[in-house]
Amino acid sequence: MSFPRLARDLADVGRRFYERGWVLGTSGNFSAVASARPLTLCITPSAAHKGKLKAADFLPIDDAGRVRGRTRGKPSAETLLHLEIVRARGAGAVLHTHSVWATMLSDRHLADGGLAIEGFEMLKGLEGVSSHQHREWVPIVPNDQDMTRLSALVRDVLRKDTAAHAFLISGHGLYTWGRTIAEAERHVEILEFLFEVVGRSADLRT
Amino acid sequence: MSFPRLARDLADVGRRFYERGWVLGTSGNFSAVASARPLTLCITPSAAHKGKLKAADFLPIDDAGRVRGRTRGKPSAETLLHLEIVRARGAGAVLHTHSVWATMLSDRHLADGGLAIEGFEMLKGLEGVSSHQHREWVPIVPNDQDMTRLSALVRDVLRKDTAAHAFLISGHGLYTWGRTIAEAERHVEILEFLFEVVGRSADLRT
Amino acid sequence: MSFPRLARDLADVGRRFYERGWVLGTSGNFSAVASARPLTLCITPSAAHKGKLKAADFLPIDDAGRVRGRTRGKPSAETLLHLEIVRARGAGAVLHTHSVWATMLSDRHLADGGLAIEGFEMLKGLEGVSSHQHREWVPIVPNDQDMTRLSALVRDVLRKDTAAHAFLISGHGLYTWGRTIAEAERHVEILEFLFEVVGRSADLRT
Amino acid sequence: MSFPRLARDLADVGRRFYERGWVLGTSGNFSAVASARPLTLCITPSAAHKGKLKAADFLPIDDAGRVRGRTRGKPSAETLLHLEIVRARGAGAVLHTHSVWATMLSDRHLADGGLAIEGFEMLKGLEGVSSHQHREWVPIVPNDQDMTRLSALVRDVLRKDTAAHAFLISGHGLYTWGRTIAEAERHVEILEFLFEVVGRSADLRT
Repeated sequence: MSFPRLARDLADVGRRFYERGWVLGTSGNFSAVASARPLTLCITPSAAHKGKLKAADFLPIDDAGRVRGRTRGKPSAETLLHLEIVRARGAGAVLHTHSVWATMLSDRHLADGGLAIEGFEMLKGLEGVSSHQHREWVPIVPNDQDMTRLSALVRDVLRKDTAAHAFLISGHGLYTWGRTIAEAERHVEILEFLFEVVGRSADLRT
Repeated sequence: MSFPRLARDLADVGRRFYERGWVLGTSGNFSAVASARPLTLCITPSAAHKGKLKAADFLPIDDAGRVRGRTRGKPSAETLLHLEIVRARGAGAVLHTHSVWATMLSDRHLADGGLAIEGFEMLKGLEGVSSHQHREWVPIVPNDQDMTRLSALVRDVLRKDTAAHAFLISGHGLYTWGRTIAEAERHVEILEFLFEVVGRSADLRT
Repeated sequence: MSFPRLARDLADVGRRFYERGWVLGTSGNFSAVASARPLTLCITPSAAHKGKLKAADFLPIDDAGRVRGRTRGKPSAETLLHLEIVRARGAGAVLHTHSVWATMLSDRHLADGGLAIEGFEMLKGLEGVSSHQHREWVPIVPNDQDMTRLSALVRDVLRKDTAAHAFLISGHGLYTWGRTIAEAERHVEILEFLFEVVGRSADLRT
Repeated sequence: MSFPRLARDLADVGRRFYERGWVLGTSGNFSAVASARPLTLCITPSAAHKGKLKAADFLPIDDAGRVRGRTRGKPSAETLLHLEIVRARGAGAVLHTHSVWATMLSDRHLADGGLAIEGFEMLKGLEGVSSHQHREWVPIVPNDQDMTRLSALVRDVLRKDTAAHAFLISGHGLYTWGRTIAEAERHVEILEFLFEVVGRSADLRT
């Protein structure tokens, strides 16, 4: 798919996520692979309003996170994490969101190193999962403002938890991905749904 | 009503349910009877985004769950459950949704075999119910990836609980139906409302 | 204001309330005074979808609840309650909604005969209230399918609690009113907001 | 930016906040600086529906809170608070909202004089904050219908808590600001998100 088409599709994702309150206050960032060799990522600019993205706002970056060609604009601060995921998983699209339930669960389960979700039909929306009996382990990495350090942590998690469809950063939010933008968006919807179920169920147990 | 008209009406239902978060991540499926003899069901294709359905996406299936005429597309995996309901209840439309509250309640009350809802004015939105004093029993069947086994369970429940307007599959979601698409949609709205009331009330009691 | 204009404004109110989930499953009903002498009420038809109302759906009824002129259509079953409110309060518009929080609070506080709300700035949105220190008493009447009996109960409450801006019917929903449709809609928004605040605060206290 | 452009941008903010339920029942008010010398504020009229604002509804007021030029319309009752904030912070825009979570938290933490929020990535959406380890102190002032007294309280808080990006009025709502309307809107989204996280987490701890 062409760069403008990917940018337009990611802008549409932004509008839907903004309406659900998953990318408030310019939070979150999105990318898609526009070219595999040499690697070019179509990525959201830094600090943009995610409900009002236009295709022209998106930036082409190379495999070191530098803006290709033109110099206008600054890519998302978390560009390096997108590149780690593309490299480790061969993802075609990476989506990062900040929801209330993901923020809460990522804090509450940080000490456990992750969160297990099991027994729900919705798990079948995750690529390759064929039964509700699947146990999805969502690793949680501690938050860090040093992107080099955080990238290294993420790289380790992606290597160790090879079956994971996503990871959380504590007090921060969700990263998930897919072969296509549609698959990555489906993963966000599935995981946010399950976070709400798990979060509300914990309310009941206490 | 013609097949294209039913397909368009079901696509509209999909948009409304998607906005409320009841069919996230391509979950849920919808059908309507396009012809009674021979039975033809207009049904959602497998794994479709329920907020972006177009009339042309829908498939005509026969009473064995096979796609009629053309071979393009694959019907929802849960087609057999739709057929069980149409046969047992003479339904004109069947709607299946995955909401947060239905997921939670269907797990919590599985051991009881179902969930009783009683005393609410909203119950009168269920066809044939004329008083809030009505006691609606919503049977819950355990989830199963084997559709033949799950169909048999559903058939038993529909035979046993003849007054039920709906059933839940544990950790999975809601099935309800009506003579028309509008009646089935009304049943979804009524039941999802009541699930939220019952779910939140339980929060208070603990 | 003319009958068609009132009908259009009430249809718009219906769309907004439907989006917020306050009139799901064809629940709720709305009216406005089209003529004072002889009394003509512009009212929603029975069992209509409140998110899809058209001006032509509304019915003109007289002070006994009979449809004027044409015979097509059937007014809301709760027409008598609208007439009681118009007579007792000189209201120009009456709105009835079914929300999750109103349903829960009307059950929980039925034994107290009502619910006191005090100390919130939002109370100033109720007509004539000029301080957050105002104590609003929302009477609760038990639900009844016999409209003559329920009307009598409502008449008593309106006579006794002359300062009340609204009342609840247990397990059922909210009735409020205003001189205009806009004022009545403002009252619904204010009260639903406060019900959610009071309901969630109770969650915290248990 | 011109007065009509500021008015149009504030009207758009109103529509978005209305959809999220942050300015129900005509609550809330918004302003932006149209001219610095002499000071002219573009402000919402008193008691307007925040989801239906038109640019022509906005009023120009001077540094004493009087409407400039024309006499039609009445500015928001809380105009004096907007002026205090513009003077103390050099703000270009001031936004005031009434949400369920802000109402609850402003009551619950009034005795502490404020609410500390710490450890969340979303804090970085507040101007000048560069780490999730930031501790944001949101002062809470008791509500008062006497605007002169309340203004004096707000002036004191703005002088004392010079790092604060916002303050709460108890049982009432949020005031925040920014150099531009976009920055102020971002602050509202960030703070409302964090209030919900903090409020729901408290539910879990009890």
